[in-house]
Amino acid sequence: MRERSDALTLDAGDPLAGHRGHFVLPDGIVYLDGNSLGALPAALPARLDAVIHEQWGRDLIRSWNRHDWIDLPVRVGEAAAALIGAGPGQVVAADSTSVNLFKLLAAALDARPGRTVILSVEDNFPTDLYMAQGLARLLGGEVRLRLVSEPALEGAMDEDTAVVMLSHVDFRTGRIRDMAALTAAAHRAGALALWDLAHSAGVLPVALDAAEVDLAVGCGYKYLCGGPGAPAFLYVARRLQDRIASPLSGWMGHVAPFAFDPAYRPAPGVCRFLCGTPAVLAMTALEVGVETISHAGIDRLRAKATALTEYFITLADERLRDHGFELASPRDPADRGAQVSLRHAEGLPIMAALVARDVIGDFREPDILRFGFAPLTTRFVDGWDAVEMLVEIMETRAWDRPEHRRRPRVT
Amino acid sequence: MRERSDALTLDAGDPLAGHRGHFVLPDGIVYLDGNSLGALPAALPARLDAVIHEQWGRDLIRSWNRHDWIDLPVRVGEAAAALIGAGPGQVVAADSTSVNLFKLLAAALDARPGRTVILSVEDNFPTDLYMAQGLARLLGGEVRLRLVSEPALEGAMDEDTAVVMLSHVDFRTGRIRDMAALTAAAHRAGALALWDLAHSAGVLPVALDAAEVDLAVGCGYKYLCGGPGAPAFLYVARRLQDRIASPLSGWMGHVAPFAFDPAYRPAPGVCRFLCGTPAVLAMTALEVGVETISHAGIDRLRAKATALTEYFITLADERLRDHGFELASPRDPADRGAQVSLRHAEGLPIMAALVARDVIGDFREPDILRFGFAPLTTRFVDGWDAVEMLVEIMETRAWDRPEHRRRPRVT
Repeated sequence: MRERSDALTLDAGDPLAGHRGHFVLPDGIVYLDGNSLGALPAALPARLDAVIHEQWGRDLIRSWNRHDWIDLPVRVGEAAAALIGAGPGQVVAADSTSVNLFKLLAAALDARPGRTVILSVEDNFPTDLYMAQGLARLLGGEVRLRLVSEPALEGAMDEDTAVVMLSHVDFRTGRIRDMAALTAAAHRAGALALWDLAHSAGVLPVALDAAEVDLAVGCGYKYLCGGPGAPAFLYVARRLQDRIASPLSGWMGHVAPFAFDPAYRPAPGVCRFLCGTPAVLAMTALEVGVETISHAGIDRLRAKATALTEYFITLADERLRDHGFELASPRDPADRGAQVSLRHAEGLPIMAALVARDVIGDFREPDILRFGFAPLTTRFVDGWDAVEMLVEIMETRAWDRPEHRRRPRVT
Repeated sequence: MRERSDALTLDAGDPLAGHRGHFVLPDGIVYLDGNSLGALPAALPARLDAVIHEQWGRDLIRSWNRHDWIDLPVRVGEAAAALIGAGPGQVVAADSTSVNLFKLLAAALDARPGRTVILSVEDNFPTDLYMAQGLARLLGGEVRLRLVSEPALEGAMDEDTAVVMLSHVDFRTGRIRDMAALTAAAHRAGALALWDLAHSAGVLPVALDAAEVDLAVGCGYKYLCGGPGAPAFLYVARRLQDRIASPLSGWMGHVAPFAFDPAYRPAPGVCRFLCGTPAVLAMTALEVGVETISHAGIDRLRAKATALTEYFITLADERLRDHGFELASPRDPADRGAQVSLRHAEGLPIMAALVARDVIGDFREPDILRFGFAPLTTRFVDGWDAVEMLVEIMETRAWDRPEHRRRPRVT
């Protein structure tokens, strides 16, 4: 692993190498942030152009029927479902991850009357915690968000627990949680299990049905390549669908949205979790993203992501340890998503120096340098070049400049 | 008013006629449904193309800072604010109208502790009622939605009323409510006033600040021309902003979203009502729509819409009364938005026959034919041609066919 040519050889042997051409990528950058914003699918501009000109522009309001705009949440949801081990009729695309989480948390509490705790872990992704806090506040103190450390999680599932809310892959470390085991533990305690798939959907096999997951949400703009701020998705297991309802009971979740009935009556199935009018342009971009990813096959995506992270860790072990970096991600690839996180006390300015040199990862408080390996757009040589640049930055102390210590507005 | 040439003369004298070129419109159709889906702004394709290629495609994640994606909700909100009489710092673009309504209803209830009623009128737009019903159900019976007839509205505002929720312009009839008077009445009862501007924003002067409105929501895809399913907007009067909070407390409403603080602390000002990651592509389309409308000036938009609806009503009076049509919209233009609604017992098949002949309005249960006059994209001759076609359909009984009685999925 001592030569750049080794990386090029790995790329030459990569069965997914041709898929990189399905994306538009700029020259001269090393992009290791597909876990924050997936790359632009090459098919998108023409598809969006058709939606804009031939649908919105030409057919106008008639497009709701003529071009099946009204089916977008279900159609895009089903395409995503195939990537996350969900059988038909359980996934819709809609709203944002945060909004979908709110719907499902409220529905879970409703399904477990008398139970007052939303259980999660302290280092969960903040917006998930915020949404639970907002719901608890709205419900006026009867419900609370309880946060425990990871080792205390199973022991904390008890007769007060209505729902266990967890991320499948930890956003800081990339650690994969055991979805089946934790779901089973939640069920033994009589609670529902709600999973956030933000860092797993589209990059590793997820088996929602097989793991008997109750509820899930996920993000459209990371590995699914749906574009910045893409619509999110949600999953409700079929067995629960007609027993729970959405607190955000908008007209798209009504059994007959165009009857203009003054009383809300939920649609059958998962569609009752829709709310407002589908975002057609954004949903089109997500549809193209999901299609572009899906062509590769989830097992091949997983295999390549694992190979990329293994390779990067090997290089980091050899070349970065002496510079004070520690691996924050699990060493066992079975426990690791498609990212490698390194800890360094000077992580913020080091990442800033790296980004200034067009090697793009991101920094997460307090000391995490995060490198994402979206398997269709990342090459082994990108891992090599990133480590090479890190070594240079450390050896020259290029990170130690005031401008690299300024926090950007968005990190 | 007896000749098509009269309409052409009116169009020739229209000071806004040139603005029609700011939109892409298909040949050969009469589009009277801009109140359901605004037309495509001609500037959009190039703008969206730049966002897709030069921002998402080329600059990738860096665009959040480099191209100020993070400011889109505020920037688009401010552009909309100028159309609705809202001073700076009170409007953001986000989510859907339904979701925004939920946020503000919950915040209003929180601001009026002890009061348990959301008051509205029976014929309010259904999704607004559904959202209030969903919130009431979530709050477990302590809160209820009370619906009264229009004449009973002011009398029903009492010491139980937390918030009065009304549409500024009625979606069926186009009737404008007296925002200042009803807001003042709500305030006298100690309640907050929440207005839905779906059918007024961008087409008639709205004076939120002057009317001392507390809260408002509005739609991006009707007169604002933001594209199908565009993001919506919300308004919170400055005096309330730091005293209320959103139940959908997502990270974009946090004081420091990228600090990854586990506890939610609301941002100052209206930004606390943001929730998930901004939908960049959809928000770009809305921004272009709002800009395109704004160039015309709201007073000129109003003047032309009034002239268009007056002309259409004159023609309807002369030529449609004998065919069983009745005017459902107010006859006084001061009370009427930019639409004309006609009642007819056979409204459904008549509208279907009209649409089949490329004259596009829409039908609303039980008997309303709705014709929208978005002032920048509608000509006087469109009104003439629509009436001409209606007369022909009635005289030939062309509406009386089985295929015109089938309800489309989306109306």
